[in-house]
Amino acid sequence: MGETRKRIAIDMDEVMADTLGKMLECYNRDYSDTLTIEHLHGKKLRHVAKCGGEVSKYFDDPLFLRDLKVLPDSREVIRELQGRYEIFIASAAMEVPASFAAKYEWLKEHFDFIPSTHIVFCGDKSIINADYLIDDHAYQFERFRGQGILYTACHNVEETRYPRVNNWREVAEMFLK
Amino acid sequence: MGETRKRIAIDMDEVMADTLGKMLECYNRDYSDTLTIEHLHGKKLRHVAKCGGEVSKYFDDPLFLRDLKVLPDSREVIRELQGRYEIFIASAAMEVPASFAAKYEWLKEHFDFIPSTHIVFCGDKSIINADYLIDDHAYQFERFRGQGILYTACHNVEETRYPRVNNWREVAEMFLK
Repeated sequence: MGETRKRIAIDMDEVMADTLGKMLECYNRDYSDTLTIEHLHGKKLRHVAKCGGEVSKYFDDPLFLRDLKVLPDSREVIRELQGRYEIFIASAAMEVPASFAAKYEWLKEHFDFIPSTHIVFCGDKSIINADYLIDDHAYQFERFRGQGILYTACHNVEETRYPRVNNWREVAEMFLK
Repeated sequence: MGETRKRIAIDMDEVMADTLGKMLECYNRDYSDTLTIEHLHGKKLRHVAKCGGEVSKYFDDPLFLRDLKVLPDSREVIRELQGRYEIFIASAAMEVPASFAAKYEWLKEHFDFIPSTHIVFCGDKSIINADYLIDDHAYQFERFRGQGILYTACHNVEETRYPRVNNWREVAEMFLK
């Protein structure tokens, strides 16, 4: 059965987990700023933050990723997808080695129906053998062997090379109709 | 360039790292036993250990994997392979989530020429998109899309379905001649 079902690999940050929401919250608190998602259209937080690239320091805290909010409908839709596809979670966790444990625990808490065998922490996602990859980073699609599906995030709104989904309802529309 | 070179994925435990050696050392010390590699021909340690499956408790120590010995010639041969192939390290780390950090640090210490982008912690290795997978677990080859190369370990000596290498000199022979 696993051999015949198509395979979908799904990114975590900004696709399943509201990483940016927590970044904004921490940044606004620490720098007395009032940035919102709307300020980030087409940009990354580090391009508009008072502290520039230093915002990435939040990732140094091993617990930063532990209490991220689950993005709307992701749990329900992924569970439904699992009925028809083989689902793998593929996170570029190697960028932030301190985050391995927190990422794994977050998945176990919120997506306990994904078996550990189907969780992948990697860097370059061209190593992923799947038919589809749902990700907010278009550069991950360039060498990916399957079809990249761009999940909308502030930083990728100008990208036009790939099919796009704006939310999990649209993922359901694309894969479950 | 990355697109044209063939890709080799390499397992860590029992292929790059002497996990069994350390297991035996700890087990013999704690159970006053004198087991050697020779006692394990065709078997797993848990099948001959006085404590049975409990030997796997050593993996619960997050530091157990941190000071494993590097298997002979693996560093030199992998470095050479990197000149001709795209090399990924693919470890079934999801079986022992407590080990993520130790595994990553071990790789950074002993194989610092492998970029983080090319390290993968996974479970089911059929998710690996590579031409070859060098691994001591034959079950990982069953759904793998490329060619599995079995790296000899005590537990797999009876396995005959896949090309076999007994050490890293034989890997060099296979891939670098």
